[in-house]
Amino acid sequence: MHRDPTITDVRLTPVLVADPPLLNTQGVHQPYTPRLIVEVVTADGTTGLGETYGDTRYLELAGPLADRLRGRRAGDLNRLFAEAGQVAVDASRLSGRVDTGGLRGARSADKLRLSVLSAFEVACLDALGKSLGLPVHALLGGKLRDTVEFSAYLFYKYAAHPDGVPAEKDDWGAALDPAGVVEQARRFKERYGFTSFKLKGGVFPPDEEIAAVRALAAAFPGHPLRLDPNGAWSVETSVRVAGELGGLLEYLEDPTLGTPGMAEVAARTGVPLATNMCVTTFAEIREAFTRNAVQVVLSDHHYWGGLRHTRQLAAICRAFGVGVSMHSNTHLGISLAAMTHVAATVPDLHHACDSHYPWQSEDVLTERLGFDGGTVRVSDAPGLGVELDRERLAFLHRRWLDDDGSLRDRDDAAAMRITDPEWVTPPVPRW
Amino acid sequence: MHRDPTITDVRLTPVLVADPPLLNTQGVHQPYTPRLIVEVVTADGTTGLGETYGDTRYLELAGPLADRLRGRRAGDLNRLFAEAGQVAVDASRLSGRVDTGGLRGARSADKLRLSVLSAFEVACLDALGKSLGLPVHALLGGKLRDTVEFSAYLFYKYAAHPDGVPAEKDDWGAALDPAGVVEQARRFKERYGFTSFKLKGGVFPPDEEIAAVRALAAAFPGHPLRLDPNGAWSVETSVRVAGELGGLLEYLEDPTLGTPGMAEVAARTGVPLATNMCVTTFAEIREAFTRNAVQVVLSDHHYWGGLRHTRQLAAICRAFGVGVSMHSNTHLGISLAAMTHVAATVPDLHHACDSHYPWQSEDVLTERLGFDGGTVRVSDAPGLGVELDRERLAFLHRRWLDDDGSLRDRDDAAAMRITDPEWVTPPVPRW
Repeated sequence: MHRDPTITDVRLTPVLVADPPLLNTQGVHQPYTPRLIVEVVTADGTTGLGETYGDTRYLELAGPLADRLRGRRAGDLNRLFAEAGQVAVDASRLSGRVDTGGLRGARSADKLRLSVLSAFEVACLDALGKSLGLPVHALLGGKLRDTVEFSAYLFYKYAAHPDGVPAEKDDWGAALDPAGVVEQARRFKERYGFTSFKLKGGVFPPDEEIAAVRALAAAFPGHPLRLDPNGAWSVETSVRVAGELGGLLEYLEDPTLGTPGMAEVAARTGVPLATNMCVTTFAEIREAFTRNAVQVVLSDHHYWGGLRHTRQLAAICRAFGVGVSMHSNTHLGISLAAMTHVAATVPDLHHACDSHYPWQSEDVLTERLGFDGGTVRVSDAPGLGVELDRERLAFLHRRWLDDDGSLRDRDDAAAMRITDPEWVTPPVPRW
Repeated sequence: MHRDPTITDVRLTPVLVADPPLLNTQGVHQPYTPRLIVEVVTADGTTGLGETYGDTRYLELAGPLADRLRGRRAGDLNRLFAEAGQVAVDASRLSGRVDTGGLRGARSADKLRLSVLSAFEVACLDALGKSLGLPVHALLGGKLRDTVEFSAYLFYKYAAHPDGVPAEKDDWGAALDPAGVVEQARRFKERYGFTSFKLKGGVFPPDEEIAAVRALAAAFPGHPLRLDPNGAWSVETSVRVAGELGGLLEYLEDPTLGTPGMAEVAARTGVPLATNMCVTTFAEIREAFTRNAVQVVLSDHHYWGGLRHTRQLAAICRAFGVGVSMHSNTHLGISLAAMTHVAATVPDLHHACDSHYPWQSEDVLTERLGFDGGTVRVSDAPGLGVELDRERLAFLHRRWLDDDGSLRDRDDAAAMRITDPEWVTPPVPRW
């Protein structure tokens, strides 16, 4: 009678996927980034797909958490999450308040677990949806819109990874000044139809990034613009930049680190502040919201713990008059599909979501998801509506197997040191 | 392929159900209370059940909202809620900040809509669950526990409704002093196994109710106790009672009205404050939580807008370190089943839920839900796991049809005036 299928197997496949030389305040993306692909197989022959961060500390947790998934019903998610706390986390994986590898905010055992669980949850929802004949959005109460809007994610970048380093080529060219950024934006708009732009900042001194935003504003009047220096600035610098860019910005993202600093910037400027660093867990919400430190929370369903938690976060934001949208780190099509399903169900999604997806030339799907007019269509097919390409998965997994370990943990500073041996992760605030 | 069934019909059946002469600060329960029974019929022949308040203002909204349900998929709930705002609410139904009929907190158009939508949502989840072969709790991410604990709901009461007034008899006898309250608690414990007790207060001067709580504490050592005067007290009285009962109480519920007053009481006492009056909508959360006005929110899934909203409320409470449990007004077995399903999925449910159900001798189900050791077993049958008794429904609907209108809107003060013609709804605060 109970049609929620039982999980018979969980397959965990780490992969390395090509990443262009995108710059951020800590360094530059390595040529390949680790991701973990999760397959949940159920007794009725369905396979559900999930995806999350693939660094070693996530892989270490994925094994024991997968053990708790086998024999469980795919829809038994609340209990899975409640019991996950029993899986130990190596304390050495929690050092450093801020995740210097991925700019993913505070570290905690719970957050590490949630980052893995999110992939399991998505895979379970995909399997459940396929088994029941329902799209994932229907398992979340149904879509509110047929397309989800995304923002172009602009990066300062080198033309290529360093000579002699194995890497895939990209055709985007360099972007190291305002003209380069505008040209990149133009190509994003041409190729994908994006109508809003986010620039990853914290790379050059603030005045250069102010100039880049002004150039974007001049080239694309009326297009919402965002700047995200990943906490590289002091409060004073943040207030100065906010003052100079003021009306040009839809929001300023994580200008400075920590709730007290963000609260001070928010109090001293009229520019809305967004975050995926100051508020990245439910435990951080209370202080940040009580102090009005942030005006938009960018959910990353990976570290918030999946699509249901993202909806809970959105409900909390709604109750406190705080906006909500979505953060992105390097990810593949499974996660883009998951983001699209949950975003389709969130009321008051007033800001286009972020996605690195256009930067990823590789995927594990038989068919890539496409952007049309800057939006992704919400699939009504059962589950996520995507299909795994096993040959591509095997190929990308082989790359992970063949790696000597140097790329299995994302390290933007290490990548930078290949070009600049003196490079160290800059102090915070950098400016 | 899409297995979410389409709704072909919605049946709305108002009923009047027997209610004992239970006292509260505004008067006494009338002999019969209005409830609305909702049936959602889907194309695959499934019928889902829901239940909510049956007063005229809810019935008025149920018709036009039902029109929006027909032709929609049962799982298309987010859109149903988003579009419900288009259904107009008669402004005359919103007068008075506090609902004097049902002690249900602030009134707003949204809250009225949500009170009706909650019954539709439960009926849709019941239909969807039956159609998919899944219990309702599985549609909410799965149960965390196999039984849900409820608290005995003690009332000061008369032995019978006034002579000459049509009414059903009950065998509980009168409870108008500490001894009567203790005797009632003893019978609750004997019959249903409840191990915690809530006394509805605000009926007699505070010292009499303090004496009743002390008598309960003496008779049932170690049993959690609660007192709920429905906002009948001033801040000073609340602080005094909290001081006198201090360690005896699990929590004090709505001692005084409004967030500022609750915040002051909370700041001046160590007794946790619970509420189903001060925070009854998402819009009221921000101020109350920011001011630490309440320590436990009692969700009533009817006016919060259903089971998914109750889970969202629980998520907000969790993020802010506020406890959560469940409020109850006079209700039948459909709502008890719905409460049990959602309660089974809520983490950190540290307080037994309230339920009037034992006071209701009548129901619309073929089989009543039972309490064992003070708990209700969580059904794993598809949907809610309850079945409609059409003969009983027709009988109770006939009673509603035959009523001259005097009972179609709950009015505890009107009932009181039959015994005491001078009775007026007491001023707030009363003491």
